Amino acid sequence: MAKEKKVEQITDMEVDFAQWYTDVCKKAELIDYSSIKGMFIYRPYGYAIWENIQKELDRRFKETGHENVYLPVLIPESLLQKEKDHVEGFAPECAWVTVGGADKLEERCAIRPTSETLFCEHYKNVIQSHRDLPKLYNQWCSVLRWEKTSRPFLRHREFLWQEGHTMHATAGEARAETMQMLEIYADFLENVLAMPVVKGRKTDKEKFNGAEETYTVECMMHDHKALQAGTSHYFGDGFAKAFDITFTGRDNQLHHPHQTSWGVSTRMIGGIIMTHGDNSGLVLPPRIAPIQAMVIPVAMHKEGVLEAAGGLLERLKAAGVRTKLDDSDQSMGWKAAEYEMKGVPLRVEIGPKDLEKGQCCICRRDSGEKVFVPLADLEETVKRLLDEVHDGLYARARKNLEDHTRTCQTLAEVKEFMETEGGFARTMWCGDLACELKMKEEAGVTSRCMPLVQELVGEACVCCGRPAKQMIYWGVAY
Amino acid sequence: MAKEKKVEQITDMEVDFAQWYTDVCKKAELIDYSSIKGMFIYRPYGYAIWENIQKELDRRFKETGHENVYLPVLIPESLLQKEKDHVEGFAPECAWVTVGGADKLEERCAIRPTSETLFCEHYKNVIQSHRDLPKLYNQWCSVLRWEKTSRPFLRHREFLWQEGHTMHATAGEARAETMQMLEIYADFLENVLAMPVVKGRKTDKEKFNGAEETYTVECMMHDHKALQAGTSHYFGDGFAKAFDITFTGRDNQLHHPHQTSWGVSTRMIGGIIMTHGDNSGLVLPPRIAPIQAMVIPVAMHKEGVLEAAGGLLERLKAAGVRTKLDDSDQSMGWKAAEYEMKGVPLRVEIGPKDLEKGQCCICRRDSGEKVFVPLADLEETVKRLLDEVHDGLYARARKNLEDHTRTCQTLAEVKEFMETEGGFARTMWCGDLACELKMKEEAGVTSRCMPLVQELVGEACVCCGRPAKQMIYWGVAY
Repeated sequence: MAKEKKVEQITDMEVDFAQWYTDVCKKAELIDYSSIKGMFIYRPYGYAIWENIQKELDRRFKETGHENVYLPVLIPESLLQKEKDHVEGFAPECAWVTVGGADKLEERCAIRPTSETLFCEHYKNVIQSHRDLPKLYNQWCSVLRWEKTSRPFLRHREFLWQEGHTMHATAGEARAETMQMLEIYADFLENVLAMPVVKGRKTDKEKFNGAEETYTVECMMHDHKALQAGTSHYFGDGFAKAFDITFTGRDNQLHHPHQTSWGVSTRMIGGIIMTHGDNSGLVLPPRIAPIQAMVIPVAMHKEGVLEAAGGLLERLKAAGVRTKLDDSDQSMGWKAAEYEMKGVPLRVEIGPKDLEKGQCCICRRDSGEKVFVPLADLEETVKRLLDEVHDGLYARARKNLEDHTRTCQTLAEVKEFMETEGGFARTMWCGDLACELKMKEEAGVTSRCMPLVQELVGEACVCCGRPAKQMIYWGVAY
Repeated sequence: MAKEKKVEQITDMEVDFAQWYTDVCKKAELIDYSSIKGMFIYRPYGYAIWENIQKELDRRFKETGHENVYLPVLIPESLLQKEKDHVEGFAPECAWVTVGGADKLEERCAIRPTSETLFCEHYKNVIQSHRDLPKLYNQWCSVLRWEKTSRPFLRHREFLWQEGHTMHATAGEARAETMQMLEIYADFLENVLAMPVVKGRKTDKEKFNGAEETYTVECMMHDHKALQAGTSHYFGDGFAKAFDITFTGRDNQLHHPHQTSWGVSTRMIGGIIMTHGDNSGLVLPPRIAPIQAMVIPVAMHKEGVLEAAGGLLERLKAAGVRTKLDDSDQSMGWKAAEYEMKGVPLRVEIGPKDLEKGQCCICRRDSGEKVFVPLADLEETVKRLLDEVHDGLYARARKNLEDHTRTCQTLAEVKEFMETEGGFARTMWCGDLACELKMKEEAGVTSRCMPLVQELVGEACVCCGRPAKQMIYWGVAY
């Protein structure tokens, strides 16, 4: 049976983490390959996770005054070239449209790799006065970057994301926006995706092309590698000057507005997989799971079982739980393995014996633990268990992050740490690019961020030994 | 002041309907032009209408078992060519990517003009058994068609839409799906957008490239022209054969599945404007309006006014009404004109005199009518008025449709009708392409549809006079 394939064993993560990851993506039916290298198909279950992410984030964006817009998918080459640092970063990985209908285009167009230039062109049209500010725009769309290598969710040639682009009257307001969005990302990752983060600022080498400052939320995966889960950029007025965007201030003088952009993408789904998954497959944080509780009738040919299961389904739906009923003719073993693979947080099982005792059996995906629950307590117990699963996943991920973050005083120590255990090396740094490059060359690490909460762990740069005032995290990143 | 521009007069629709339409699109801040011809920017207010359309339709799609997916934006040329009729229709208006990064592509790729071919390629991977059917997929995305002319919402080179693509075990199930989706569109247009529809089948000449049958919902605009608001296609197993998609049936034999696709786009927003708008601007049907009631304090420097207006805002929000408060320092005249231009269904005004009398004043956008409402009755009255506005808009549009649908027996009659009044000409038709072409040449009309409800209005074809068994609508279409 084709259906049986799904519950075939997946590779153990201890044997081959990369293969385990690919197996989960395919066997949990999150993704499929297309005929174009590096362009993936988001299948219903994978896309449903993204829809839940969108719903949660979109609400937070709107609560903080942001509005959604949609700008064109194509950027004329001359427009992309208006900001020098920006085009240098993105032009080499653009896909170019050169023919429209039967005609060669006079000017070729890039499929957007990001939309700063398009937003600036539009902002020039709609910003004239201080009364037009701030502009707090966001766009949900796909972007395209012609990368050489690809992995599901982590590196696509085309991926889904949101890109916020805002304009403000003052640098102070724009900086506050940059930090506000970083905090929204951090809150979302921790309280919805159960992924603990390190918040910090990127080095000049690692910042976004064209930004003055880039802030990031960094997460640690099961294999102790880093995932940059979201970024928030402060642009100053660099783009505004390049695009000649001005507004008349309250002082009746012309000023350039100050700008931010910020984004997260479907790579967060890769982060969920590598933070919470295990050797039975995906483990979904309950607040984002498309199905939070799967109701399964046991021995469903027996009198009353199917009706009772249907009753549980309706009660859970009425209580606002995302739930489904599997009354297919597959075996109980198949169903258990299937919903483990798909990371459904809770299975709610009910059979003839349970009916007699007025109970059901709830099984947790994270721990495998089973509890028998009086039917009267169904809704309350399911909601409590969903919160407990969230808290448990968060605590386990937090422990992973803390256990594998090590303070190092020398490059040799960093090297030894990365070669044996791996994780985040916490060190002092003088701020010089030369040291950052040497860390990469000698220890194979890139700077992850300079944490917002600075805890000085020494006095000397880990690399050159000169006096250092900044604490920084190093790691190996996806 | 830049802000004052918005309330400048727009062209009267009786003077120049096309210019009136463009004025409304720009001055209600629905849309902006980009630097690429035919590619538009959906501004926050225009995009918010689309978001409400999405929310309503997506709920209906999910209630009928459909799941969302996301497939790549690019289609390799060889994939697009697999179904002959389909590629003939779409290839001439594709935009082609020929360069990725620094390299010329071995095979050029089209930006999707529609995704039948991509869905078929994926379906081949995921359909093996009758247990995998039906597949009920939908995608929200943008598509690109390199058209020579363009108009906001009605004809974009890039536009937003949804495309449903489903696969079924039998032709009967696929046909039922095709009709179900047509009914969902009709219900949505009438009961949410207040746009009456004529449901019917397209002629072979007008059907979708590659479809066996195309069904449509046709609406009549203020100027008596037709707008095709949505289509639903039955494909039979033509694509399945071209793409070699098979499944093992309950009979253990291999079969080709039967397919449908269906879509509506942001051109519906153009339809809303041209169905309900007037010489003061946009008129939005309440169930889709981003702001259903705008609360405006009158003489807000007077004691208690702003607080009272804030109270009304909170009460309306709590009652589930989409509402905002305008406490800007613009004049009352400016505010009235601004929210008329933006088509906000109700304005709720409160000033010192109202406070004394314990009332507020509610003004309807559709009729201009003002009523004074005791504060205790606020929520109930607003909800009732929103329904009344919907019903009123629908009735007016229905009257327009009925008044300008004329039964004609001869081509000369059709010609005279179109030259004087315009609208839908209801005639008999023999079914021959030659007659359809002659109607276009002589009377300037295209076939709109053969209505599902067939009311025989004669015995002879309007064009050739031979016996005819089908009633058909003709018109001039956007």
